[in-house]
Amino acid sequence: MPQGSVLETITSEEARRVIDAAAAKATEIGQPMDIAVVDAGGNLKAHVRMDGANIGSITISINKAYTSIAFQCETGDLQGVTRQDGPIYGLSDAHGGRLAVFPGGIPLVRNGSIMGAIGVSTGTIEQDQEVAEAGVAAY
Amino acid sequence: MPQGSVLETITSEEARRVIDAAAAKATEIGQPMDIAVVDAGGNLKAHVRMDGANIGSITISINKAYTSIAFQCETGDLQGVTRQDGPIYGLSDAHGGRLAVFPGGIPLVRNGSIMGAIGVSTGTIEQDQEVAEAGVAAY
Amino acid sequence: MPQGSVLETITSEEARRVIDAAAAKATEIGQPMDIAVVDAGGNLKAHVRMDGANIGSITISINKAYTSIAFQCETGDLQGVTRQDGPIYGLSDAHGGRLAVFPGGIPLVRNGSIMGAIGVSTGTIEQDQEVAEAGVAAY
Amino acid sequence: MPQGSVLETITSEEARRVIDAAAAKATEIGQPMDIAVVDAGGNLKAHVRMDGANIGSITISINKAYTSIAFQCETGDLQGVTRQDGPIYGLSDAHGGRLAVFPGGIPLVRNGSIMGAIGVSTGTIEQDQEVAEAGVAAY
Repeated sequence: MPQGSVLETITSEEARRVIDAAAAKATEIGQPMDIAVVDAGGNLKAHVRMDGANIGSITISINKAYTSIAFQCETGDLQGVTRQDGPIYGLSDAHGGRLAVFPGGIPLVRNGSIMGAIGVSTGTIEQDQEVAEAGVAAY
Repeated sequence: MPQGSVLETITSEEARRVIDAAAAKATEIGQPMDIAVVDAGGNLKAHVRMDGANIGSITISINKAYTSIAFQCETGDLQGVTRQDGPIYGLSDAHGGRLAVFPGGIPLVRNGSIMGAIGVSTGTIEQDQEVAEAGVAAY
Repeated sequence: MPQGSVLETITSEEARRVIDAAAAKATEIGQPMDIAVVDAGGNLKAHVRMDGANIGSITISINKAYTSIAFQCETGDLQGVTRQDGPIYGLSDAHGGRLAVFPGGIPLVRNGSIMGAIGVSTGTIEQDQEVAEAGVAAY
Repeated sequence: MPQGSVLETITSEEARRVIDAAAAKATEIGQPMDIAVVDAGGNLKAHVRMDGANIGSITISINKAYTSIAFQCETGDLQGVTRQDGPIYGLSDAHGGRLAVFPGGIPLVRNGSIMGAIGVSTGTIEQDQEVAEAGVAAY
């Protein structure tokens, strides 16, 4: 039996606040979204698929959040460098797949430490990024 | 571009109500849980990992909900029949993996149609089932 | 570019100290081992395959450490309950595979929080457990 | 039971020396790294994730080392030939995934035989390569 419980880097309440803020922005711009929040280990803390959002974006939103943890950056930062003439073209394959290398994933930072990340998917990359930023602002 | 959007069988609001009721029961019995809700297609609609719940139960809660859709029953109904001497021993392998064949997954039914399912994991199977039932009661 | 770096729950120095202590015990009992340490998110922090240890135990040692994080317990605690007549028979399938449900994985606990885990494999389960315990004692 | 043990092509001590030299260079240039060493069979011998290095680079460092064994070359040698207009574009897919086709993976050679390989990831490809070379120099 457990002698303790795994260190939580982001709480359920924080995850809900981030998701609710992101969902409010998604509603405001009229684009339903999949929204995921992961902890500092890249493990899912919460996910919501808004009514009308993509089924295919369930995993993309989760993987965007994961990618932000895995590479300690916004997923959009990986877009140029992973293109076919970029220095790390083939990054996702080299990792074993599942990486998202376009906007919509952003780390959640506190006191210089990445404590989790949000991933948003279904809209255009500009919309995904805007909604993710609204989530970050509520952290 | 799409001319419509995929039929929603369960709304975000319903999923949240189900999860909140399940989480309230989990809090009441003092056992944090992973709680997932999927739609009639078995696709994730919402997930919450309560503070202290298992990282390993993220996928199990989702897979319990999926399994309830996939076989139109409670996951506990599959326990006896999939045991070593049961008629469908090897079911998960036959499916390609991911099936949960112990309690904690229950369909969400309306007017005789399964519209979604809830999956709960981290506690004992009795606790998982009790919390899932609390979620179903709020649907 | 990163605005911070991911919270570290276990340091490289701690991981090395744990592995070195485990390896010393393995040498003492004359059984080379694969030894892995993961952080609180279940992600690999360090791994060593001692000379003569199993190639097949590379992933098993890593997965034992992961399983200890994922279920907040020693992997040996999962052995009875996942047997064919146990309440959660089929756990690994339900999780999506990769779980180790026999001794050799133990959480690394500090002040009531699981900060990481060690996984050991190649010997008998008694040897794996003994070596893992030696690693834990050095944490 | 075994009548012998699998031929070791690189010892734990050699792997540690290579990793320590690489880590020292990483510290010197101020860029924490994931560093992996594999044997002549491409199987992991040792891995260290330095504090601050990427979680996503765990598998990439391992896969860079594997790729160096798998194709008997530096991973950087595969970069040009696998680009969209290169002769073996699609190499990783053809292999079943996991290949790294950018710098940071280098074979460890003795008397004309590749005995193992090092893989380094988290920094720029120039940094990864520089740190890998420092590891090779200590072999």
